[in-house]
Amino acid sequence: MSTSYAVAIVGATGAVGREMLRVLEQRRFPCGQVTLLASHRSAGRRLPFRDGEIEVRELDDAGRAFEGVRIALFSAGAQTSLKYAPLAARAGAVVIDNSSAFRMDPDVPLVVPEVNFAAALDRPRGIIANPNCSTIQLVVVLGPLRAAAGLRRVVVSTYQAVSGAGARALAELDRQTRDDADGRIPTADVLPFPIHGNLLFHDVKDPSGYTEEELKIVHETRKILGDAALRITATCVRVPVRVAHSEAAWVELERPMTVAQARALLARSPGIEVVDEPAARRYPLPRELAGTDAVFVGRVREDASVPGGLAMWIVADNLRKGAALNAVQIAERLVVRGL
Amino acid sequence: MSTSYAVAIVGATGAVGREMLRVLEQRRFPCGQVTLLASHRSAGRRLPFRDGEIEVRELDDAGRAFEGVRIALFSAGAQTSLKYAPLAARAGAVVIDNSSAFRMDPDVPLVVPEVNFAAALDRPRGIIANPNCSTIQLVVVLGPLRAAAGLRRVVVSTYQAVSGAGARALAELDRQTRDDADGRIPTADVLPFPIHGNLLFHDVKDPSGYTEEELKIVHETRKILGDAALRITATCVRVPVRVAHSEAAWVELERPMTVAQARALLARSPGIEVVDEPAARRYPLPRELAGTDAVFVGRVREDASVPGGLAMWIVADNLRKGAALNAVQIAERLVVRGL
Repeated sequence: MSTSYAVAIVGATGAVGREMLRVLEQRRFPCGQVTLLASHRSAGRRLPFRDGEIEVRELDDAGRAFEGVRIALFSAGAQTSLKYAPLAARAGAVVIDNSSAFRMDPDVPLVVPEVNFAAALDRPRGIIANPNCSTIQLVVVLGPLRAAAGLRRVVVSTYQAVSGAGARALAELDRQTRDDADGRIPTADVLPFPIHGNLLFHDVKDPSGYTEEELKIVHETRKILGDAALRITATCVRVPVRVAHSEAAWVELERPMTVAQARALLARSPGIEVVDEPAARRYPLPRELAGTDAVFVGRVREDASVPGGLAMWIVADNLRKGAALNAVQIAERLVVRGL
Repeated sequence: MSTSYAVAIVGATGAVGREMLRVLEQRRFPCGQVTLLASHRSAGRRLPFRDGEIEVRELDDAGRAFEGVRIALFSAGAQTSLKYAPLAARAGAVVIDNSSAFRMDPDVPLVVPEVNFAAALDRPRGIIANPNCSTIQLVVVLGPLRAAAGLRRVVVSTYQAVSGAGARALAELDRQTRDDADGRIPTADVLPFPIHGNLLFHDVKDPSGYTEEELKIVHETRKILGDAALRITATCVRVPVRVAHSEAAWVELERPMTVAQARALLARSPGIEVVDEPAARRYPLPRELAGTDAVFVGRVREDASVPGGLAMWIVADNLRKGAALNAVQIAERLVVRGL
């Protein structure tokens, strides 16, 4: 007898919501009833699933849509999660929330299954938070390095795809590309400046001058690794790539490893594929890796400027491993344990 | 009485060569006769200069074109420089060479005028080397920081424009942009992979796994700063931006400075403009800074993960300050001293 689980996706028509539905189908997740929820604006749209289509429903104020739901995947922004995730949890669902709303809540585990799945089992609010996209792919790599050799410090600069800013930002990039090709000056409505042929930063709200995205990497990495004192600094940059985030990372290990040791460790660690033949020009390229599931690591090399230093390049599909896939992987492992 | 100087540009039809000619005109460099030289393929083309045009001549094997030339600006690749720069120097010209051919030659000064102009006065071979583009903008910033506070270590990741790979690579990016806009899959001939919507690395030839570009930053920065033991590590990435290189840099100072002190120091240092109001979304954007002359610094912030740590973002036009302008600035200062 196989059990199936009623699943709801909140924010089903967004870039990540649509990817969640695709990932559930591709991985043959044991879905029973699938409920797709979105704002009034998107209600009535129909999304393909398996051999048919599912009509998107409007999220009602009382959260009645969550009755009978066992797993609720949220990706509709922090405000929607703050309001509806507790309703879904009260209705009996395990909430896996892709927004930033609960990530730093001490009663909400922040989970990357390859690194700290056990944390998902202790969820007093019935909510599990899915980390920020740029954090997930970094932590998948830092986890095994830390376990094997200890982390003294991490420096990371990101090259983040436009799809991380949502479906409207991606449509804006595509429009800007056409404008440029046709000799028109690209303009911006969704992002603050044109991203085509440009580099942008996320917004800065903190007096430290760090962007929201940079602070997420720092705080979320510490929480997932369970190391509140981890020394880590980040510069996050949006680049004109459609899908797949890339990161240049420098790690300072407490116990030095050779490049060969690090490659071998990473190659046998869950969720990682090492693509690292630099002389043959084989390294992870974001354009080629959109649509894939692994975290790809290449350009591993010794950083002789510091004891125990290693430099590397980390690429992953930000909509899949950086969001939808990580959430579904959490759900899969919960299902194996009977939730 | 004003003196004028016969100038030759070798590689005049390339992306940097054309920029050299524009910079000479824009800055009213006291040119006498201007000789434009290039390969057989480009000879006969005419380039605009002041109110007229100059015909490009073929570089002859004997280097007779250098007779009477006082300043020879080279930007035609290392092989051309290795062959012809000594001929030009023997003919009596001061050679300012933008290729990598002589940069690490102990008898050739490697010069960024704001940082180490005096080195240009001691040139036993008659050749002065212009540093690599990504090195120049970094060193303009590191110079004053090092003088004021000492450098313990530098970490830098680059976001380098396609024009740094030459005019053909830039034309390829433009073609790929049109192909994408028209629904065709972009292909690559000049760079090893499509750069539109992608990120690429320079070639790796060294067993360390570092790219040629990364090694240039390390070795050239040490030579310009006169600090052979400087601890510095780099990851260099090509991004789909047409003109202007950007760099995320972390510096570890021997004597800590506050963010306000660092901003003030950089703002009064030669060649630097500080654009740093992050809450107002004012920071250096490569798309807006193509065609400018300064090195722009923004996003200066404390890096609390290490003593004396500062993080910042550095943008400059790679064809101007990163190449043509720096070469002409060297020539200008030589002229002031009578060469």
